[in-house]
Amino acid sequence: MKMARTVGFALVMWAAVAALRPVAADEGMWPLNRFRAAPLQQKYGFTPAPQWLQNAQLASVRFARGCSGSFVSPSGLVMTNYHCAVACIEALSTEQSKLLETGFYAETATDERRCPGMELNQLTTITDVTDRVTAATKGAEGDRFGAARKAVFAVIESECAKDDRVRCEVVTLYHGGKYDLYSYRRFQDVRLVFAPEFDTAFFGGDPDNFMFPRFNLDLAFVRVYDGGGPLVSSHWFPWSPAGASAGDLVFVTGHPGSTSRLDTIAQLEFERDVRLPTHLLFYSEARGLLTEFEHRVPAEARLARAQLVFIENTLKVLKGELDTLADRTQLDRKRAEETELRRQVAARPELQQRFGGAWTAVSDAIDRKRDLWKRSAAFSRLTGSELFAQAQTLVRMATELSRANEQRLPEFTNAALPARRQQIEATRPYSTELETLVLAHALRHIREQLGLDDPAVKALLGRRAPDEVASSAIQATTLRDATARVALMKGGQAAIEASQDPLIALAKAVDGFTRESRRRLEDEIDARVDKNIEAIAQARFALQGETVYPDATFTLRLTYGTVKGWNEAGRDVVPFTTFAGLFDRHTGSAPFNLPKRWLDRKSAVALSTPFNLVADTDIIGGNSGSPMIDRVGQIVGLIFDGNIHSIGGEYLFDPSKNRSVAVDSRGIKEALRSVYRAERVLQEIDRR
Amino acid sequence: MKMARTVGFALVMWAAVAALRPVAADEGMWPLNRFRAAPLQQKYGFTPAPQWLQNAQLASVRFARGCSGSFVSPSGLVMTNYHCAVACIEALSTEQSKLLETGFYAETATDERRCPGMELNQLTTITDVTDRVTAATKGAEGDRFGAARKAVFAVIESECAKDDRVRCEVVTLYHGGKYDLYSYRRFQDVRLVFAPEFDTAFFGGDPDNFMFPRFNLDLAFVRVYDGGGPLVSSHWFPWSPAGASAGDLVFVTGHPGSTSRLDTIAQLEFERDVRLPTHLLFYSEARGLLTEFEHRVPAEARLARAQLVFIENTLKVLKGELDTLADRTQLDRKRAEETELRRQVAARPELQQRFGGAWTAVSDAIDRKRDLWKRSAAFSRLTGSELFAQAQTLVRMATELSRANEQRLPEFTNAALPARRQQIEATRPYSTELETLVLAHALRHIREQLGLDDPAVKALLGRRAPDEVASSAIQATTLRDATARVALMKGGQAAIEASQDPLIALAKAVDGFTRESRRRLEDEIDARVDKNIEAIAQARFALQGETVYPDATFTLRLTYGTVKGWNEAGRDVVPFTTFAGLFDRHTGSAPFNLPKRWLDRKSAVALSTPFNLVADTDIIGGNSGSPMIDRVGQIVGLIFDGNIHSIGGEYLFDPSKNRSVAVDSRGIKEALRSVYRAERVLQEIDRR
Repeated sequence: MKMARTVGFALVMWAAVAALRPVAADEGMWPLNRFRAAPLQQKYGFTPAPQWLQNAQLASVRFARGCSGSFVSPSGLVMTNYHCAVACIEALSTEQSKLLETGFYAETATDERRCPGMELNQLTTITDVTDRVTAATKGAEGDRFGAARKAVFAVIESECAKDDRVRCEVVTLYHGGKYDLYSYRRFQDVRLVFAPEFDTAFFGGDPDNFMFPRFNLDLAFVRVYDGGGPLVSSHWFPWSPAGASAGDLVFVTGHPGSTSRLDTIAQLEFERDVRLPTHLLFYSEARGLLTEFEHRVPAEARLARAQLVFIENTLKVLKGELDTLADRTQLDRKRAEETELRRQVAARPELQQRFGGAWTAVSDAIDRKRDLWKRSAAFSRLTGSELFAQAQTLVRMATELSRANEQRLPEFTNAALPARRQQIEATRPYSTELETLVLAHALRHIREQLGLDDPAVKALLGRRAPDEVASSAIQATTLRDATARVALMKGGQAAIEASQDPLIALAKAVDGFTRESRRRLEDEIDARVDKNIEAIAQARFALQGETVYPDATFTLRLTYGTVKGWNEAGRDVVPFTTFAGLFDRHTGSAPFNLPKRWLDRKSAVALSTPFNLVADTDIIGGNSGSPMIDRVGQIVGLIFDGNIHSIGGEYLFDPSKNRSVAVDSRGIKEALRSVYRAERVLQEIDRR
Repeated sequence: MKMARTVGFALVMWAAVAALRPVAADEGMWPLNRFRAAPLQQKYGFTPAPQWLQNAQLASVRFARGCSGSFVSPSGLVMTNYHCAVACIEALSTEQSKLLETGFYAETATDERRCPGMELNQLTTITDVTDRVTAATKGAEGDRFGAARKAVFAVIESECAKDDRVRCEVVTLYHGGKYDLYSYRRFQDVRLVFAPEFDTAFFGGDPDNFMFPRFNLDLAFVRVYDGGGPLVSSHWFPWSPAGASAGDLVFVTGHPGSTSRLDTIAQLEFERDVRLPTHLLFYSEARGLLTEFEHRVPAEARLARAQLVFIENTLKVLKGELDTLADRTQLDRKRAEETELRRQVAARPELQQRFGGAWTAVSDAIDRKRDLWKRSAAFSRLTGSELFAQAQTLVRMATELSRANEQRLPEFTNAALPARRQQIEATRPYSTELETLVLAHALRHIREQLGLDDPAVKALLGRRAPDEVASSAIQATTLRDATARVALMKGGQAAIEASQDPLIALAKAVDGFTRESRRRLEDEIDARVDKNIEAIAQARFALQGETVYPDATFTLRLTYGTVKGWNEAGRDVVPFTTFAGLFDRHTGSAPFNLPKRWLDRKSAVALSTPFNLVADTDIIGGNSGSPMIDRVGQIVGLIFDGNIHSIGGEYLFDPSKNRSVAVDSRGIKEALRSVYRAERVLQEIDRR
């Protein structure tokens, strides 16, 4: 699994390469309004018709918290990954009904259960707003550039988002070369239909994560409701009767979170030397804490486990990225490509004059970034505590709502407010012990990064120890109760000021520092970097035209490729696994233990059925839950991971080794039929 | 604290700098037989007499497990850091007598209690054996070079170590430019005399570690016994009646563990990109595990805490090192220095021919090092479990003793055997839960680093989970009992083969893999690197003569400097703190809580007495417990740490910011007198 988008992923890079040689046919994450059909036609003799592309767009959905999915029936049934629905499955579990252990299947429509806080978005329109943004930021330098851009974004988004059912986002493509307005239909009544057991979905656990051969049923079905009943979904992907074979052309639609293929060397070195090590250390410690926590507080192990899965996945990604950047050969190649692009720019005086200074300007900004970034990153740990995150949202919302829309932080503009409100209103369980652990860890980390005598540290801790502050605040807070949160939200600034809640107090105490740190990072560094990266993008357009795909932006992209394995250290890896392989790998020890239901029903399973498969489609974190479809737009697989070489896809696409990992459509049906006997779902996806 | 030598510290660097400009007067860790008096005389008008140097050598002691200390009375009393004795203090604690909480003071001679496993070494002679080693390795290439050197070391050490009371080590200086034989007198009957409470010794804990202003009584006194009674120590340092003032010349003797000031850029990049991140991740996770373990198993929190202190210290060091190497300015300067040295070599054809290829040869070896190193490092985690370490020693000893002395692993040569036997025989408590945690972590880590299908992983785990393997092995092992270990040791190969002990079985199962991995790393990489680093050292001698000090080697060194503060971001840091500052910093919350005894006796304390101080002496991990002495060889302080800038001392000495941190000799006496009322110790150190 594990393609869920990890917050904090960095931006930008492969186009430095792309600027210098033609993009290989099977590479590229293409926005649907900027899809280049020519190379596809050239290599595969296939050009998707407009209605093919339109169906691909409208049958795809985005999970607001960072995943992909697709409609697979005309009645709003959505296929995604188990790991994209795990928070829902966990929230619907109780002491009596341990859904992580048993799985979930709604035998009848009325058994479908609402997922608290889950929001799905369907992309309805894309509008190019480049001219409007460029006009608004024209001539602005440094922090004024960022402020001007933020303001015009807020205006455009607010004009677009006329009611709560619409979500609008201005998307920055090519780091500023182009700006598109994406308008989504929002769905907030989403109900769980089917999920297997945790042990089946995550079979092989962290050891097998990003590996192949692979044996995961990383699958969930949810259903979108509209007005109390199932949504009538006019666009959906039918199920392929035959599935895919090795060598077949396949497509993937989905929402890759971010890539850094256009980064400059200075940015990549910052990643390698500062950002990746800092996150890796923090998450490694968190992994240790949660691993022991599972033993210490077995009653809350369930919640801890979900976090641990997330953290171990994050760690594997960050480690893979660091390994890629620590590979001298790769970085030297990047360096040579940057040098070549700079040489081409320098060779044309009009380009040199407009864009020639951009690389040095980026590098200078990065040199001043370290301390500001570290401070800001340290503060961001606080919201690892979901209760603290609620407190911070409440404190900030009260302040932000007193400001004009275009002067607010982006997450509190009118366009973004519905999502904030939903966060505050959603009812879900909080573990006191786990929240305490997470908040205490964040506080210790902040003290460590900023030092004892930093005023922000003093504001947070006073003369108390981090564990003490965390424990007393989490114990005494009323914020685990949605009605208390809603009351504070409705009470506005006065209610926040009057509140004696210790988490509200903590959020208030540190808010000035965190805002200031964020503002300085955004204005003094990020805005300057962005402006110059935009210049580099424009230099590239001037040299190449718009033949390069933009870095990923957690917006809908189309990618294509072939079902095929690869060669690993001299050994050929075949592109399919089967149920037979799954049963072979079962040892009975976690994470290689199949649930009893599987063992009991083994004799009913057609063991040679394909289970998982790989293809050289170009995906990355955020593509989790993406449908894999064939030429005629039928489901042949469900993306849930990439192989270990796919992690380097953050910085470059290596066609010889980078592979997407999917559940085979035939495997899904075989499991639903022979193991789960989920006839209702089977019948629904078999409708044509 | 925290200058205890961390196993795994890397090697070599500042001489690349030193080759190019004269060494600043206050820089340098000088072996006592290679001390350069001229710059000292020039700057301070002082030249130590031969008997001054001899007393400095014989009054200094090395803790075999990685610390320094000094005789401070003619009756074998040794002063060192609390954190160098903490394993003893912990081992002597019981449910009834919690010495970490209460501290320890032997009011009478008979109350002094033996520290299990503690060994002290006193350096008696140094002999230059360069010619003999060079002759033995002449013409050997690649792995044969390493083997030949290992063999001649074993012969020389074995000739020297005639009985168990002598420890002999051939020390490789300048990474092979020179070889000196160090002969030590071994003391194994060492008894605890005095230690304060943990909270006083570690006041400020990890947050204050490597910081200054500082307020730690990181002090312990132990006594060396010989033949059942106190050792008559003919060499010792008397206590200074007046202490030191700002601006005073001071000296430090001690055992810096290792430095990397002579490393090539390729080696430094390996540190930055591979070694430091790998260790940081492992230890960060361990920190998380132990932090929660303290809550989960309060009964064993005592043991966990000592490990946690070690790990947090290690993390701070590794992070400081990574920060130094991630600083582009510093690394670019190093790069320029290397380029300049290579240029000077290239300018002289006879040097170019002999040494010109050395840098590329190092770089080529480093390129092939990554996988081998990662494998070897992963295996090394196993011995984090002290019980597994016992099992491995027993398994290997049985094999090694069947071989000729010069063909054994270095830790099983005749010279090294007494220490191995002592390890096996020492009686100490093992925590079942903690040992399980550590071993399980190591097994998970190995599986993660090597992959599920690696034969070594299969040998260790079979079809079981890491936690299961660790838990059942630690539960069932008999090795926590010293008599069982001694029986296995005496039984030799036959006893090991017949043993059904699960930890012995685990050690046997993996031994072939770990030996092979170590052999390949040493022969294919390290030996090649060493040989070429030796060539670089010789090129440097040819250009400069022997005016450069060798990198640290955990052998006795003399360094000197001045008591003085530094400027931190525009603010002057004064070089002394006082007891008043200590009481001010007391909050009552760990780690800023003074024991009740201190609060009760505050009125008796002369609050203006100097407590901690800093000087610009050149020290590093391993110098913990070093005496700070004045011109006449009197104790003025006790080294226990460096400031945060001292960590970069691994790679270079920055005279403007690098400071050693010590307990002031006046502070020690004031605490002994007014807080601990330790009259017997006071009288002994006041003898002249």
